[in-house]
Amino acid sequence: MELLKQRILEDGRIEEGNILKVDNFLNHQLDINLLTEVGKEFTRLFADLGITKILTIEASGIAIASLTALQMDVPVVFAKKTQSKNLDNETWDAKVHSYTKGITYTIKVSKRYLSESDKVLIIDDFLANGQACLGLKEIVENSGAELKGVGIVIEKSFQQGAKMLKDAGINLHSLARIASIEDGSIDFVE
Amino acid sequence: MELLKQRILEDGRIEEGNILKVDNFLNHQLDINLLTEVGKEFTRLFADLGITKILTIEASGIAIASLTALQMDVPVVFAKKTQSKNLDNETWDAKVHSYTKGITYTIKVSKRYLSESDKVLIIDDFLANGQACLGLKEIVENSGAELKGVGIVIEKSFQQGAKMLKDAGINLHSLARIASIEDGSIDFVE
Repeated sequence: MELLKQRILEDGRIEEGNILKVDNFLNHQLDINLLTEVGKEFTRLFADLGITKILTIEASGIAIASLTALQMDVPVVFAKKTQSKNLDNETWDAKVHSYTKGITYTIKVSKRYLSESDKVLIIDDFLANGQACLGLKEIVENSGAELKGVGIVIEKSFQQGAKMLKDAGINLHSLARIASIEDGSIDFVE
Repeated sequence: MELLKQRILEDGRIEEGNILKVDNFLNHQLDINLLTEVGKEFTRLFADLGITKILTIEASGIAIASLTALQMDVPVVFAKKTQSKNLDNETWDAKVHSYTKGITYTIKVSKRYLSESDKVLIIDDFLANGQACLGLKEIVENSGAELKGVGIVIEKSFQQGAKMLKDAGINLHSLARIASIEDGSIDFVE
């Protein structure tokens, strides 16, 4: 998605350790017009699959999922990372390991909101090691719903997540695929 | 907002301790069509104030803020509750006490995304004791931006938050105002 790649090049910042920060438009400040275009692109890529629900994970996935759901006219469900008072006792759970934070946490979705009749599209902002995505996939499978695809805004193709998901047979589309970040410069996969 | 009140009566569940749960449409599963109408109503209520930015707090505020921002054509910034690796060191901070969880946490917004030229609308899903809202107000004030209003989806008018915000001179609009929840029954403020 050319518009997105241009935006990453213009407004992404590369910080110490070759960390790409896109908090200007994707995961702290949100450019709603850009995310609307992202939603339209996901809708095009995952058309004709009979998607009934978009599943994401708090917090950065929620805006992207919502603006995609607006185009697809389906509800969003977002997995919660913490034991919330507002969450049902009856949940589908999965453990997710975060390599960057060095912790393992549990994500939860109420059993009320995923069922055998659902055809699910998973949406998230980043794909790096793929752990969050595998956790969401586990929840979809445990619920009996059908996972129809995974839509990612920015894939770090030099990490293992994308390969793992494709090897698992998942219908993955990433809108910007980064081949490398070196010396303050970003190269996209051609 | 009649559509919202009807939805609360239809799909809200009242659980032990007279706790209202609206995770069917507002804060776990998200009814995007309803939230679009919520966004239109906030846009009507806060018209002609020159809003430049919508500020909310992760996670439940993000979808509502995003669908309001879509109508207003402004960016969203969401305050983060935890020290994230992806957050700038330079942040506006405020402490927020949660009565329900019995903890005090820090919320943060990067100094990059709020400035003196901003006219800010705060959006959140619930208003009960008003602590999260006061924290967001403190961040807006510290940044030098101007707080133009606060939009709340569900106000628990029997708790102290709404009165505190009004006493502080804030332009508050709540779309559904609950007077009481007793014996499984919800009464709205007339």
